[in-house]
Amino acid sequence: MSDNIVSISEMESYLRDHLSQGTYEHSLRVRDTAIKLAGRFSADKGKAEIAGLLHDCAKTKNVLEQAGKLGVKLDGYMRENPGIAHAAVGAKLAETVFNIDDEEILNAISSHTLGREGMSDLDKIVYLADVIEEGRDFEGVEVIRKKARKSLDMAMIEALSASICYIASKKREIHPMTVYSYNDLICKEKK
Amino acid sequence: MSDNIVSISEMESYLRDHLSQGTYEHSLRVRDTAIKLAGRFSADKGKAEIAGLLHDCAKTKNVLEQAGKLGVKLDGYMRENPGIAHAAVGAKLAETVFNIDDEEILNAISSHTLGREGMSDLDKIVYLADVIEEGRDFEGVEVIRKKARKSLDMAMIEALSASICYIASKKREIHPMTVYSYNDLICKEKK
Repeated sequence: MSDNIVSISEMESYLRDHLSQGTYEHSLRVRDTAIKLAGRFSADKGKAEIAGLLHDCAKTKNVLEQAGKLGVKLDGYMRENPGIAHAAVGAKLAETVFNIDDEEILNAISSHTLGREGMSDLDKIVYLADVIEEGRDFEGVEVIRKKARKSLDMAMIEALSASICYIASKKREIHPMTVYSYNDLICKEKK
Repeated sequence: MSDNIVSISEMESYLRDHLSQGTYEHSLRVRDTAIKLAGRFSADKGKAEIAGLLHDCAKTKNVLEQAGKLGVKLDGYMRENPGIAHAAVGAKLAETVFNIDDEEILNAISSHTLGREGMSDLDKIVYLADVIEEGRDFEGVEVIRKKARKSLDMAMIEALSASICYIASKKREIHPMTVYSYNDLICKEKK
């Protein structure tokens, strides 16, 4: 990790200034949940803290504009559905604004919305922390919380299948990456 | 269409001999439903009759062996989940055994399980007939039947989203083609 990384307090301060109050408070809860999960599954708590805190750092109304400024290439799905673009933009923002060059942290931020094939434990921790932090209240969240007490993979399968089902029920486009991530974990479980 | 196409009675006879009783009776109901839908949406009733009748012609226990004999290339998902291989094998079987060379009929048979991008009306009719024929009884089938009274596309979106949700709820692999078909129709509806 770079020596001149921005401090956690400075990150919090940036988030307080740039995100909505709701997203800022959610980010703090995701940070706390990610640290807990990292402890439970023997992952790096320091990286979980930073990735959890920063996962939504680009979740603002001008995410597409920011993508342009930072030179982040978005695919067609992201351009059509800016709500899913903030993860890729967030990773670039974390690199640029907060001086983070740790690939594990950047990957965890960029994969927290759609997942990716071959997710690392840190990726799964941040994805799950985002879904199960205590402010979340949706049908099925307790099942994911329960699975997340025992297995990152089983909890991820539950979370991704819930996400796919939710998007399908809303008749919105499903990003293929979410399905690839899900299938990847299903195949690993079978073996 | 080829002149020496096998007669409908001969097709029925072949299906009676090669399929389980349940699949045979389902095929007759899909045929009847496909003809009705073709009437409703001004499609070719003759093609709907043949494609509906033959859609499951390869749905047997030895579908993988048959794929090998007929030279049908299956992707990894189909090899892992032979239950979805019968559509591609069925199209080849219809060509080989029943002498059908009509691309529209063959496409409708081959896309009846996973869909495809740019589905034709006949494709949609056979896909939907398979899902809503009167023997089907699952949560959500009435919504699809209702939509199929007015719009092939709206009924297809409902059917594909129900299929994706069902597979996800069962924690089985989701073939990306189903998601591409679904996204394709969602995008068209948006425009």
